[in-house]
Amino acid sequence: MRFVREILKDVEGYTPGEQPQGSNLIKLNTNENPYPPAPGVLEALRNLSADALRKYPDPLSVAFRRACAQRYGAPDESWIFAGNGMDELLAMVLRTFVDPGDTVVATYPTYSLYEILCVLHGAKLHYVDLDDDFQLTPDFMSASGRLCFLTRPNAPTGVAAPREAVADFCARFQGIVVIDEAYADFAADTCMDFPDRFDNVIVMRTFSKSFSLAGMRVGTMKAQPQLVREFLKTKDSYNMNAASQAAALAAITDYDHMLASVAKVCATRQRLREALVARGFRVPESQSNFLLAHWNGTPSAKDIFQALSAQQIFVRYFSARRLENALRITIGTDAECDALLAAIDGILGAAK
Amino acid sequence: MRFVREILKDVEGYTPGEQPQGSNLIKLNTNENPYPPAPGVLEALRNLSADALRKYPDPLSVAFRRACAQRYGAPDESWIFAGNGMDELLAMVLRTFVDPGDTVVATYPTYSLYEILCVLHGAKLHYVDLDDDFQLTPDFMSASGRLCFLTRPNAPTGVAAPREAVADFCARFQGIVVIDEAYADFAADTCMDFPDRFDNVIVMRTFSKSFSLAGMRVGTMKAQPQLVREFLKTKDSYNMNAASQAAALAAITDYDHMLASVAKVCATRQRLREALVARGFRVPESQSNFLLAHWNGTPSAKDIFQALSAQQIFVRYFSARRLENALRITIGTDAECDALLAAIDGILGAAK
Repeated sequence: MRFVREILKDVEGYTPGEQPQGSNLIKLNTNENPYPPAPGVLEALRNLSADALRKYPDPLSVAFRRACAQRYGAPDESWIFAGNGMDELLAMVLRTFVDPGDTVVATYPTYSLYEILCVLHGAKLHYVDLDDDFQLTPDFMSASGRLCFLTRPNAPTGVAAPREAVADFCARFQGIVVIDEAYADFAADTCMDFPDRFDNVIVMRTFSKSFSLAGMRVGTMKAQPQLVREFLKTKDSYNMNAASQAAALAAITDYDHMLASVAKVCATRQRLREALVARGFRVPESQSNFLLAHWNGTPSAKDIFQALSAQQIFVRYFSARRLENALRITIGTDAECDALLAAIDGILGAAK
Repeated sequence: MRFVREILKDVEGYTPGEQPQGSNLIKLNTNENPYPPAPGVLEALRNLSADALRKYPDPLSVAFRRACAQRYGAPDESWIFAGNGMDELLAMVLRTFVDPGDTVVATYPTYSLYEILCVLHGAKLHYVDLDDDFQLTPDFMSASGRLCFLTRPNAPTGVAAPREAVADFCARFQGIVVIDEAYADFAADTCMDFPDRFDNVIVMRTFSKSFSLAGMRVGTMKAQPQLVREFLKTKDSYNMNAASQAAALAAITDYDHMLASVAKVCATRQRLREALVARGFRVPESQSNFLLAHWNGTPSAKDIFQALSAQQIFVRYFSARRLENALRITIGTDAECDALLAAIDGILGAAK
């Protein structure tokens, strides 16, 4: 393409998980929440006035950021930034703190979007392998770069690095540490207090998982005000529309609804994990709303993935190093997980 | 700030027009449409299901892009891209087609956001002055760069360059030409057919003005598929949420509602322009939903702006070169414009 930047010539872009259409399918492939958002969210959308649509939204999303500050233990909204999904925040953090050519650190494996964002920005991504149990290694602890993406709990493993190790890393690392807490509401503990003591830490959250708002694109983050100020400079003028601001505010206001939804998902997660382990899968303890189920038998993990797809049961398969023999399974309802197990039994039984 | 990029050290960010709160105020400062969006838009938002919020939205906004293709004379949606407001498209076009250090061309004056976007991206903005009637000059016609932002009708002048001149420029210019048609629905003609014959032209539209959807952040563009493909690579994975996709589709589907709204605005525009000219303002013929009213008398334009603000009537004042003696006035309802004129009469009368 004659006009495009050299840097983009070989870029393919991020491939979102398949969004199969139709009824009677079981969708356990994109880590959505199987339960609906808080009733107040739909009400907030129904109550949007013609005037709210006609006029520009609050460019600073103040009401929502204030609610986040209160919930996430920040003095006020100057510690909070919010955007059009955590995707936007992840892209913005590179544009704000990383020059083209700079090094960005991440564990391997981790959320595959970081690599794409680095390529688009012209940054060098330095992957440091996790150990066999998907835990941080000494090599990672001593890595250096302008910025680090640390996903906790990690995707697609579900494993959360110990808080103390993450704190040690934040104290040692010279650049910005983005702690991607997309799945933290499903975890035993979080690092949301780290920005209180580290001036280089940004903790990010998405409302797509625990709050059941993937459709509305809501991401938020906590960091010291001098970091948040830079985001306010580099953001699009009106990055959250009136509907997503209203929905996000309603969602965080009904926090108990989210907690109840998360409790159900975590109970099903334990049940599904035990059932998969009983069938011979190796499944690390997950602190998120999915399981990474390793399978070294016959048929292969990829074959199982395809056989499940043929039965309209969708899980995620990555053809990437260290993930070729695994399926990432989103925690659905109990009924969906039972159907998944029955299908797996059928596939494994037929192969015997 | 220790962590921030050198390039951002002196950046202030874009200052959106004031969003005064309260009732009994007349808001003619941010080019919003005084009339509500199509009834189908509110209905579409009311009909959003819990499932639509819970699940990821269509990452490619196909339904809306298809409707745009049909409306804007494109063979199919491969000619259309859509995003979270035209702001997102303007930022993306730099990231996609301009390397840091490259030159970007624009007229002066024009939409002030381009300059901020260029600074954030590290591009050099080369302004070419318009002539005294705010028309394109020979210098502009022969300008060169990697990309050109050409606003038609222009902001904040309201003047539309002749189609033939724009076509000549597109044929001559070696880089990408972005024709920013934010206000084109209020104009006598448009350049929406240019991408059919120019492989370097991108025509952008916002739904914030003519469609009364500033609150929903909807932007769209038409270009040849090989250009659109690059946007699909560089965009955020899910850049339009479920609500904005539904609202945008409903809005473009009820095209007659938009046309009726635009007709009312254009009638008021003519009436207001004549009234301002009768009072001694110099007001270029506007093809948009605002007027740029020049005033060289006493009190100054800035004083009038401040006196109006004190009466809760908000217009836009730019303290920039060639704009110091002007007010940019959004076309409101007839009643709002009458109130504005009465207030101006009071201010000018009191000064005599």
